[in-house]
Amino acid sequence: MYALELTKPDGRQLTLYSRKPIERMDPAPSPFAEPLNAGPHLRWHPLRGEWVTYAAYRQGRTFLPPPEYNPLGMTTDPANPTEVPAGDWDVAVFDNRFPALAVPGAAPPSLIVPSAPAAGYCEVVVFTKDARSSLGALPLSHIDLLLQVWGDRASKLARRGGIAYVLPFENRGAEVGVTLHHPHGQIYAYPVVPPVPARMQQEAQQYYSENGRGVLQDHIASERRDGARMLYEGPHSVAFVPVCARYPYEVWVAPIEPVESFGELDAGQRADLARALKTVLLKYDGLWQRPLPYLMAWYQAPTDGKSHPEAHLHAQFYPPYRTRDRLKYLAGTEIGAGFFAMDALPEEKARELQQVEVNVE
Amino acid sequence: MYALELTKPDGRQLTLYSRKPIERMDPAPSPFAEPLNAGPHLRWHPLRGEWVTYAAYRQGRTFLPPPEYNPLGMTTDPANPTEVPAGDWDVAVFDNRFPALAVPGAAPPSLIVPSAPAAGYCEVVVFTKDARSSLGALPLSHIDLLLQVWGDRASKLARRGGIAYVLPFENRGAEVGVTLHHPHGQIYAYPVVPPVPARMQQEAQQYYSENGRGVLQDHIASERRDGARMLYEGPHSVAFVPVCARYPYEVWVAPIEPVESFGELDAGQRADLARALKTVLLKYDGLWQRPLPYLMAWYQAPTDGKSHPEAHLHAQFYPPYRTRDRLKYLAGTEIGAGFFAMDALPEEKARELQQVEVNVE
Repeated sequence: MYALELTKPDGRQLTLYSRKPIERMDPAPSPFAEPLNAGPHLRWHPLRGEWVTYAAYRQGRTFLPPPEYNPLGMTTDPANPTEVPAGDWDVAVFDNRFPALAVPGAAPPSLIVPSAPAAGYCEVVVFTKDARSSLGALPLSHIDLLLQVWGDRASKLARRGGIAYVLPFENRGAEVGVTLHHPHGQIYAYPVVPPVPARMQQEAQQYYSENGRGVLQDHIASERRDGARMLYEGPHSVAFVPVCARYPYEVWVAPIEPVESFGELDAGQRADLARALKTVLLKYDGLWQRPLPYLMAWYQAPTDGKSHPEAHLHAQFYPPYRTRDRLKYLAGTEIGAGFFAMDALPEEKARELQQVEVNVE
Repeated sequence: MYALELTKPDGRQLTLYSRKPIERMDPAPSPFAEPLNAGPHLRWHPLRGEWVTYAAYRQGRTFLPPPEYNPLGMTTDPANPTEVPAGDWDVAVFDNRFPALAVPGAAPPSLIVPSAPAAGYCEVVVFTKDARSSLGALPLSHIDLLLQVWGDRASKLARRGGIAYVLPFENRGAEVGVTLHHPHGQIYAYPVVPPVPARMQQEAQQYYSENGRGVLQDHIASERRDGARMLYEGPHSVAFVPVCARYPYEVWVAPIEPVESFGELDAGQRADLARALKTVLLKYDGLWQRPLPYLMAWYQAPTDGKSHPEAHLHAQFYPPYRTRDRLKYLAGTEIGAGFFAMDALPEEKARELQQVEVNVE
């Protein structure tokens, strides 16, 4: 992995990653002239016992983009700068211009609940220079690089201090609110462990203390023995529809042996994880012969510097469709109660995905 | 409140409620000839530590409805039965034909995670006979009746045994997946306390043990003192945009003094709660002069027969819009991390709703 760190004219950081040495590179561009200091802040939700972040940015665009303007495409006309330069790179990472978390956070307003600066980081990860590609369409070596990038970002963000948890994710498709189709994801670096990873960590710690093994480690072993819902089984990694799926086409992707974070994967594990990931993504897009929208979240250990033998790096995918034509809406019971109701069995949905043949090269 | 309990031809229960004595009533209809026994079951999610319910109903309709068929409208043609009869009623409650929870639950399949019968109840609550009305458009006395109905259902469902929590909710609008526009809500009676109420109960119990008062009780007092986000302040009830709103137009509605459940409201509290509720609903629909979609969930104490001084009956509303034209999508950070990011301040959104003048009669 080759990396080049640059600073945009508005002060934001840009890091370019490549599988090959970076020889040609234009200067770091920015569509914006000056940094945005909206000072996001946190407010405490006393009923749920969790933080909520508020970042009330005005629409601060300083130029009118042409209709086909793609801010994640390479800058070709300096009069219309995008977020990334032309040059020798495969993956680009830069600070989000409208971050929900930022350092330094602003002094929070005085409120009737506890408040705090929303001190964290929000990065945009451009998966490829090709606006018409997709994560699953990238070569295995390119996906392997992305896994390295996620690891590099997590360790770099954690080293800045004050970061409790790093979550790489991708929102894909208009159905999940994404209007920008250039393949990209995001990384949030939180000052606290957010509710979902906190809950999962609590469950994993309890399981580990009772069993001396990881809960996902044992679950993967059970899924492999059962076999009914497996989508990929390689030497080091697996992908499957979990027996307890909350979304019809939910899939988990993980290394077979517990690994706390991306940085701990060895080359063989990482290559096989890239293959598992690509297999799932190709099956998704092959299912109905169209790009399947999804949320993809990668869970790893908190970045508190402690050892987390209970943690197990993995991705969870939540596609919003129930069938080819029908969305699964999160409604009263899911949102109001946190109690998920499924009208399909994971075994049936797994069978549909198993039958999609893919060519992973 | 007057009530009449009936049994549908397919065996499902139907209860009709009215503000006046019920004198004329047709027999209980059903669009279906026979009961559906899909046997929903629960599976344990070992990573999140929660149950998920699976009810894989086939589309079992036994007749082809005419295009304008409204299953929640009164049956006028016996050849096309709906779910409710003609007669003297204001609110109708019946067992959902496709329940996510049902008694008796089926023997669950043998799985690699713990499983159990999904033994609970799912009821449909028809708010009014008028298909073109809405909850907020109903007279105060009708809304008052509905609050009594929710209380009656909760106590009746709890008395059947095996029920840990009862959640009345409404999903309103196509944006939250509702295609049936006849005003109606649902009630889920769960065999366990679901994750969100469980989390809120845990926080409330801790606060109560430390402060000897309710967390929502104290929060309401703070919101009233602050005043910036209040939408309604009556003698017994309030409505406000909470300082920690996770949705732009989120609103909470509650009695000022802690009440564990609907059944504990006295007549004065209930009348004022109806007025608070109607005020919010009219403001919502007045905001952009069109029906505002939302999720409405009513939280009360668990139905474990124990005293819950920490509990405080209240509603939370989550409209899915950020602005008149833009939806708030729950994406990576909200769904993946449970960490909500807001791009508007609750104070601004409260001001918008405060400025909507309504006539509550």
